[in-house]
Amino acid sequence: MTALLTPPAGRITLKQGGGGRAMRALIEKLFVKDFAALPFDGVGVGAMDDGAAIKIGDQWLVITTDSHVIHPIFFPGGDIGRISICGTVNDLAMMGATDVLAMTCAVVLEEGFSVESLEAIQRSMVAACREARAPVVTGDTKVMGRGELDGIVINTCGIGLTRTLVRDNGLSAGDAIIVTGPIGEHGLAVMAARHGIELEGDLLSDVAPINALIASILGIGGVTAMKDPTRGGVASALHEMSSKSGVGIVLQESAVPVTPAVRAVGELLGIDPLHVANEGKALIGVRADAVDAVLAALRAHPLGRHAAVIGTCVTERPGSIILDTGFGRRLLAEPDGEPLPRIC
Amino acid sequence: MTALLTPPAGRITLKQGGGGRAMRALIEKLFVKDFAALPFDGVGVGAMDDGAAIKIGDQWLVITTDSHVIHPIFFPGGDIGRISICGTVNDLAMMGATDVLAMTCAVVLEEGFSVESLEAIQRSMVAACREARAPVVTGDTKVMGRGELDGIVINTCGIGLTRTLVRDNGLSAGDAIIVTGPIGEHGLAVMAARHGIELEGDLLSDVAPINALIASILGIGGVTAMKDPTRGGVASALHEMSSKSGVGIVLQESAVPVTPAVRAVGELLGIDPLHVANEGKALIGVRADAVDAVLAALRAHPLGRHAAVIGTCVTERPGSIILDTGFGRRLLAEPDGEPLPRIC
Repeated sequence: MTALLTPPAGRITLKQGGGGRAMRALIEKLFVKDFAALPFDGVGVGAMDDGAAIKIGDQWLVITTDSHVIHPIFFPGGDIGRISICGTVNDLAMMGATDVLAMTCAVVLEEGFSVESLEAIQRSMVAACREARAPVVTGDTKVMGRGELDGIVINTCGIGLTRTLVRDNGLSAGDAIIVTGPIGEHGLAVMAARHGIELEGDLLSDVAPINALIASILGIGGVTAMKDPTRGGVASALHEMSSKSGVGIVLQESAVPVTPAVRAVGELLGIDPLHVANEGKALIGVRADAVDAVLAALRAHPLGRHAAVIGTCVTERPGSIILDTGFGRRLLAEPDGEPLPRIC
Repeated sequence: MTALLTPPAGRITLKQGGGGRAMRALIEKLFVKDFAALPFDGVGVGAMDDGAAIKIGDQWLVITTDSHVIHPIFFPGGDIGRISICGTVNDLAMMGATDVLAMTCAVVLEEGFSVESLEAIQRSMVAACREARAPVVTGDTKVMGRGELDGIVINTCGIGLTRTLVRDNGLSAGDAIIVTGPIGEHGLAVMAARHGIELEGDLLSDVAPINALIASILGIGGVTAMKDPTRGGVASALHEMSSKSGVGIVLQESAVPVTPAVRAVGELLGIDPLHVANEGKALIGVRADAVDAVLAALRAHPLGRHAAVIGTCVTERPGSIILDTGFGRRLLAEPDGEPLPRIC
């Protein structure tokens, strides 16, 4: 995308799966160019949005996919089953497709994987499907030998129809940036679990389907862009939105909702919550005249109670995030990758 | 499905990924029951067909998914990239959706995976997309640590629209069973490669997109059911078709096209070509009055030159395959699983 992106070396690195610059470079160099050259009429792989969209009649059919490799597979607040459903439901919602038409679920298992664990994962998937009103309609099962796979990989794909296609590149100067709730919970909950950090109070992943939350605001109008800050966190997602939209974003650090538990673990591990994955949050660009109505609607929903305006789009420094710390302003670096591999 | 199916034990076994009875038992017990209970109006997971289908206006939107774990990733006649595209294209075609609207591609890589190999796989995917006129429109990339994954897993999902939905359960007594070409090439080519068997003459996987071949016959009418004999081979696919349709199938052993190379390797390894995977073939149920026209159309296409009638549906012994060897008749056992793990 820019000359800053380094080409992939001769061997794949963990960083290239981290959701930041290194991954974007790999994807752009290896996958996007060739696939984008295939004949296709719609929002395709070249857009590098949360999914793709195809016009059918007067509606858009949105399609998205994610493979989930999270480790550990059971983590505070969720498991690989819940994240597999929610991740795909939320990607559809980010493009405006809040009613899920159908999902697929393809599971790859290691020989010797516990059937009891698989049953727990399956229960969790079904529960998330019910929350999101999303049916899994077809699937696939493969088994790899012992030592050929660490446990389980789950791929889901989702499709949905919408009349209102929302993109991640629609920001204009003057738009407000809203986040739907406190950030960093997923990434830091998983990190705390992996490092065996004991906490007073709970630090749980925020993994949840937010399609109903998003549906509650799309009728208001004034939403110009959406993206969910998963791998690479808010920092990475805002960089993508700003560079694709050709605006700068002034981010008010003190306005970003962060829970005490996230702040504590972040400080302990030396990791900025802006850089870690969320699995139940959205970043929403909103026209200034619609901010109050959107914020009120979000806060009326249980998953949006702590929604807040965290930034404003400006014409200066397109593609950059200008962090206003309250004491001054500095550019927020675009992360090279998520600090933790296998975060989703 | 029947009392014969054994419930999964406490640990996942390789057999449960093999495409036969053991896998069906796992899938039915663990996944199908709960997912099938979710509200959904269409051909869903309970049908256990090659994909699912949803009515949109006067058309059916077909959706299907597969994860690919084949080992080795480069094999005689193809590679994991080609099979990832063709497998999904062919599953759509088996339900009548021969025009591919969109595909997704999600790649999971092991840290240290060769970028050169990845580029070769990507070239192969793009070439297969061009052959099948199938655009990849969105994707996902994950990286797992060294030793956490043996190389690469590729998931693809595909969607297509059709006015003529074809199922795998539509056979009636009197229908002919056609196979579109010689069987066993994919499975035995991969096995020969793994065992280092040297052959005079080529034994190559048949991996190919057959959507154009199938499109050439759907206009004729008289197609009552289709299925592609992948994992578990012709034996497994015919068992599924016959049990779902409630018919028996008399299979003429001498009519089944088998190349000398497949016969030789099959005999050497003690494996019946009826039991091994194909990746560019279809089993087609056809009404008696349409057999000549369908066969002629298939043979006019390069991928259907050796199409042949191999069996007939009968009212006796529903769910069974009656193998007519030319010397007598016996029941063909339903395989418990593909003889080789990671065949696709």
